[in-house]
Amino acid sequence: MADARFDRLPRTVELVRDGDGHAGFAYVDQRLLPARLHIARTGDWRAVVEAIKTLAVRGAPALGAAGAAAMTLWACNEGAVPLQAGGCCEMRPRFFEALGRIADEVADARPTAVNLAWGVRRLERLARVRADEGASPSDIADALFAEVKRMEVEDEAANRALGVHGAALLPSNARVLTHCNAGSLATVFFGTALGVVYTAAARGGIERVYADETRPVGQGARLTAWELSRIGVPCTLICDNMAASLMARSQVDAVVVGADRIAANGDTANKIGTYGVAVLARHHGIPFYVAAPESTIDRSIPTGADIPIEERDPAEVLPAPITGVDVWNPAFDVTPAGFITRIITERGAFDPSEVA
Amino acid sequence: MADARFDRLPRTVELVRDGDGHAGFAYVDQRLLPARLHIARTGDWRAVVEAIKTLAVRGAPALGAAGAAAMTLWACNEGAVPLQAGGCCEMRPRFFEALGRIADEVADARPTAVNLAWGVRRLERLARVRADEGASPSDIADALFAEVKRMEVEDEAANRALGVHGAALLPSNARVLTHCNAGSLATVFFGTALGVVYTAAARGGIERVYADETRPVGQGARLTAWELSRIGVPCTLICDNMAASLMARSQVDAVVVGADRIAANGDTANKIGTYGVAVLARHHGIPFYVAAPESTIDRSIPTGADIPIEERDPAEVLPAPITGVDVWNPAFDVTPAGFITRIITERGAFDPSEVA
Repeated sequence: MADARFDRLPRTVELVRDGDGHAGFAYVDQRLLPARLHIARTGDWRAVVEAIKTLAVRGAPALGAAGAAAMTLWACNEGAVPLQAGGCCEMRPRFFEALGRIADEVADARPTAVNLAWGVRRLERLARVRADEGASPSDIADALFAEVKRMEVEDEAANRALGVHGAALLPSNARVLTHCNAGSLATVFFGTALGVVYTAAARGGIERVYADETRPVGQGARLTAWELSRIGVPCTLICDNMAASLMARSQVDAVVVGADRIAANGDTANKIGTYGVAVLARHHGIPFYVAAPESTIDRSIPTGADIPIEERDPAEVLPAPITGVDVWNPAFDVTPAGFITRIITERGAFDPSEVA
Repeated sequence: MADARFDRLPRTVELVRDGDGHAGFAYVDQRLLPARLHIARTGDWRAVVEAIKTLAVRGAPALGAAGAAAMTLWACNEGAVPLQAGGCCEMRPRFFEALGRIADEVADARPTAVNLAWGVRRLERLARVRADEGASPSDIADALFAEVKRMEVEDEAANRALGVHGAALLPSNARVLTHCNAGSLATVFFGTALGVVYTAAARGGIERVYADETRPVGQGARLTAWELSRIGVPCTLICDNMAASLMARSQVDAVVVGADRIAANGDTANKIGTYGVAVLARHHGIPFYVAAPESTIDRSIPTGADIPIEERDPAEVLPAPITGVDVWNPAFDVTPAGFITRIITERGAFDPSEVA
């Protein structure tokens, strides 16, 4: 696939800065897709947290960059400005106290994707190192800005690299089933599971992608279908409950999904419904691949049982309440490592047992 | 459960007749639930066909009664009236030619549920027998009317009987997962899968029903949740893709679903997604029960591969088209007999191999 096709996709998240040093965060407001492609902009870190909570920005790798960008907005636009007035001895503790508080608030915006906390903690560590070197809050803000831009570049590079490793696993003319959106819209740019698809498609190796609708928020129907349409990869949308029939009809050669957090033993949290697809793939003898950057691996937790699972508003499932009817709305589930054929990262394709 | 609670549920379909012999068909317009309970009425058989095609009336047993009612509306309100003017020799061939044409049109309204054709053919045979006995079209119309009323009584009786057989299979305080709506709204009255639940609940034996939302038309979210709410059985609604997680958390004791057609070998067509639930139930060691009246068994076809699967409008899945994105929207799937623990009918609970 010629890279020119990718001009049709926007950068999903992007930290920018104008001449006077004011930082801004530009993001695709994914609540409006597929009806409208709108790039929203804000200079307020609180607006980024709100965008994360409302799913205007979502997808584990994109959340890593967005969370780091939120902290940087504060540092550039608020933290470094009033504090510049004070002396170094007073301003550093206040700067770090505030930075720590904001880091926690950003990291807590959503609990399951480890990338959010990963991005935030990476910036916290950098700020501490630069402070130890004697940097001023303003210098630290500059350093954070540069680090986020590095993270953006790294994310796209990781996606393109894992795309190559993943594409090598697919048969020619592959019919790939995917769940949720692990595409360019879930990353800074290019995509993880769909990065694999795009790389294979560039070699003429994709016959069709079957996109699970992915209830309740419909990231498959709204985002994956839109993205594949922009790039020109043939796509068939199905309801989540149709995947089993498709597999029984031998119409799926491989399942490729993204990840929100991978435990040390290879257990993988991803969008709700992924586990069911993995069980069905196993039953039908279909390989099941997880594609994610290294930043999604959380070696601090031994198994998937330790991954916190976010539960969201019942109104996402049932718009109008019915008396006596509860709703259970977990946003993620955990697929045990034993159901995963390979975990594909920028460093290669691994057996889940090799992750640790 | 005291039967008084059932006063809160309407009769789903009902054939009625006024003093001058004009027949009418009353039905719950299920497109309006759960927002509004509306009993629609018509004397036109074509309106019944339209109600069947648009899912205003749905559910295999209800379709059996509705299809037979459609034929009877024609016979009572159109067929027997103008023809009464002619002599017997001319009018009988014309009556049967028209009745056969209408029977085919009604039977073809939806292809998968065998009950629709079953109801129609049962009336055709009766009409032929009565004609051979010398009955006039008007007498035949009366006979068809009486037969439909018998079918209505039989359907409720079958549901109540299979409810007893099914309830005996459930553990005490059972947590039952069901897919789609195989409740009173899918039958003339009482329900098949939910008939089992209601019978068990009357003995205090149901802790909770987990209702799959059942995309794309949402019969679980709209109909099953509404019905359980009216009867007062605790219900938790989930998206279809959450069932696997629920099973992995050991929160499901049994799956009970209905059926649209059961082949001679026990293979069972039911609402799309049922097969996936069956595979997941097998994987998690959970019994999987199919509850259906005998009229759902089609001994004329050896296996599920012979069951026609209706494909419906893509707009049910994706309201606004996306360029280059197809939709696959099968309304049913086939669960192989090997995944079914027991098939529960009014005659008892059987191993699927015993169906033939």
